[in-house]
Amino acid sequence: MFRWRGIAPATTRKFLRPMLETNGPDFSKSDLLPVIAQDAETGDVLMLAYMNAEAYAETLQTGRVCYFSRSRKKLWRKGEESGNVQHVKAIFYDCDADTLLVKVNQVGGAACHEGYKSCFFRQIDPKTGTVTVIGERLFDPKAVYGK
Amino acid sequence: MFRWRGIAPATTRKFLRPMLETNGPDFSKSDLLPVIAQDAETGDVLMLAYMNAEAYAETLQTGRVCYFSRSRKKLWRKGEESGNVQHVKAIFYDCDADTLLVKVNQVGGAACHEGYKSCFFRQIDPKTGTVTVIGERLFDPKAVYGK
Repeated sequence: MFRWRGIAPATTRKFLRPMLETNGPDFSKSDLLPVIAQDAETGDVLMLAYMNAEAYAETLQTGRVCYFSRSRKKLWRKGEESGNVQHVKAIFYDCDADTLLVKVNQVGGAACHEGYKSCFFRQIDPKTGTVTVIGERLFDPKAVYGK
Repeated sequence: MFRWRGIAPATTRKFLRPMLETNGPDFSKSDLLPVIAQDAETGDVLMLAYMNAEAYAETLQTGRVCYFSRSRKKLWRKGEESGNVQHVKAIFYDCDADTLLVKVNQVGGAACHEGYKSCFFRQIDPKTGTVTVIGERLFDPKAVYGK
């Protein structure tokens, strides 16, 4: 396979790199950008939610993840009800500047409002389409959210 | 912390679990659902793209990830140009049934059209907003895509 490192001297790479660097996610593309939350320690993908520019700015400022709730149409400070906040360990954005990845320390261990560690607690068998719950519940949603 | 496992006997859990199981992602919520691709071996989040119902069905059938390109408005068989296809190792969907997670074997090692392993090759410093390229280029996009 063609390998960049094999042909480009360090000076060329240094020259090319700044072309890709910008000022972070581009909220002019969309008011809401998807955000992947990943457990900083285990690498587990915990959830996907959305941020607007205000939620993003608050997240940077506080070091705690703030999303924008599409259903409630307002800022969603993750963990504000359950206490299961997400502390930011690192933030990344993608090549198109329209998706964010946050590596987090998930307080309480469970990111999902259904009580699972990850929102992706159901696996699909590609051959049969059968769905299997693969996660263990860490808390009872009724006890935490009272509904 | 309240723990589900501490109070619910296995029979209760078995009874409750099927309530959460459905028939997979719900494309009636949106024609396009976001899909997180994660390296099955390393746990690295590689990219985020979208699937419509047709792309999802093809992915299950072939075992190779097929997205729907929002810019080209057609099925996007990942790797069709670069050869860097993604073999499906496992598929999951989230609590709201509106996001997919695919664990993949990324052929060629690089998922990003910019030549990086992951599309999330730029890190943001939360305190300063400074962007740093943290990935190493594995291939030269010009050599692979001819543009």
